[in-house]
Amino acid sequence: MQTKNPKIEVCFSPIIFPYHNSDNCIVLVVDILRATTAICAAFHNGVNRVIPIADVSNIAKYKENGFLIAGERDGIKLLEADFGNSPFNFTKEKVNGKTLVITTTNGTQAIEIAKKNEIVLGSFINLDKVCKSLSEKKKDVIILCSGWKNRFNIEDTLFAGAVTEKLIKVYDFCTECDSALASMDLWGIAKDNLLEYVQKASHRHRLKKLGLDDILEYSFTLNTTNVLPVLKDGSFICE
Amino acid sequence: MQTKNPKIEVCFSPIIFPYHNSDNCIVLVVDILRATTAICAAFHNGVNRVIPIADVSNIAKYKENGFLIAGERDGIKLLEADFGNSPFNFTKEKVNGKTLVITTTNGTQAIEIAKKNEIVLGSFINLDKVCKSLSEKKKDVIILCSGWKNRFNIEDTLFAGAVTEKLIKVYDFCTECDSALASMDLWGIAKDNLLEYVQKASHRHRLKKLGLDDILEYSFTLNTTNVLPVLKDGSFICE
Repeated sequence: MQTKNPKIEVCFSPIIFPYHNSDNCIVLVVDILRATTAICAAFHNGVNRVIPIADVSNIAKYKENGFLIAGERDGIKLLEADFGNSPFNFTKEKVNGKTLVITTTNGTQAIEIAKKNEIVLGSFINLDKVCKSLSEKKKDVIILCSGWKNRFNIEDTLFAGAVTEKLIKVYDFCTECDSALASMDLWGIAKDNLLEYVQKASHRHRLKKLGLDDILEYSFTLNTTNVLPVLKDGSFICE
Repeated sequence: MQTKNPKIEVCFSPIIFPYHNSDNCIVLVVDILRATTAICAAFHNGVNRVIPIADVSNIAKYKENGFLIAGERDGIKLLEADFGNSPFNFTKEKVNGKTLVITTTNGTQAIEIAKKNEIVLGSFINLDKVCKSLSEKKKDVIILCSGWKNRFNIEDTLFAGAVTEKLIKVYDFCTECDSALASMDLWGIAKDNLLEYVQKASHRHRLKKLGLDDILEYSFTLNTTNVLPVLKDGSFICE
């Protein structure tokens, strides 16, 4: 009996996610700038557990209980947070062995909308690990791009294209999803000059205005870590 | 005083449209397969007026009043309609001088969501006319891709890329919109072999299954007509 090849789809915005059939799918959530890159960095530096929260009004409760809080809206650190979401904040000294609570403009909203599914987090810094793990799970995959306030963004799409290309070419996944095919073609254009290509992304202009574009090179460097954050009982742990 | 160049944005799904700032924008609605191609074909063949309706339950009322009805859902003609939405139905013999009522799976839904704006309809068959008219209006433009049931589709995106490229390179529009930049890059890959590129679109597979792919060549041929359907008081007329 022939085993059916697992299927891959790409969803460009959390608001489109309900229009994908996600039954029995693993959802790979991506928010390159910056939630998923930052969470991968935190696990790389030894964080024990990361609790994503979509609603800022829950921060106070966690703060009272002594958790470390990372939080931003529109790229600006929340007053009540210990730090913003730059991956550079999550150093070994600060996060090793701790539990971190995180809330962001886009990424934690995307996680919230897919929380009935098995969720893993991806970024360029753990790209190969993501692809290898997904290939071993042998389940259908939806890559959920966090976008920017429900709109399409280029950096999450390029990551989706990189994963799609690898899963199809190396691990025999299949697709009939237009967004997956488009992502792969955009990745094909961008991959040899990733950072240069991203220069034209509007999100990057926004970050530059906020003085946060010091993380661009870090965020677009491939495979600097081998962690895979997976959601278990409402928290991310490292697989 | 320097005149500000008009801005162009691309919206990949009707459900994302509310997240664009559309104040004072012209919205160019596109549904290549098939609503906007079909409506352009109807005007090319002399239709007098086209009334778009999103809700099928309104068909009966129009039918009682003797209007010609074109309607489909998921590519299949509605029982109560006179014909489906293939542009080949809208011949001079059938539509010349008449008023046509049309309802489709995606296109008329997209029109509905943008109806507070000035709306024009585009397709590959009236591409140059669309670009020229938009350049003369000198207003900001949002290209609204109808997609497929709120998901991204490739054919509307390629059209968006073609318009974006022309408006930026020939008519000095500007953009900071990631979807606009991505559409242009995809159009850059596809334009020399448009039909071949579209072969891989999932929507095309769907149409083939329904036996409707006879319209592909027609729908992807550029500039066979010079009509521009514009919305006035709830109906499209030809500008």
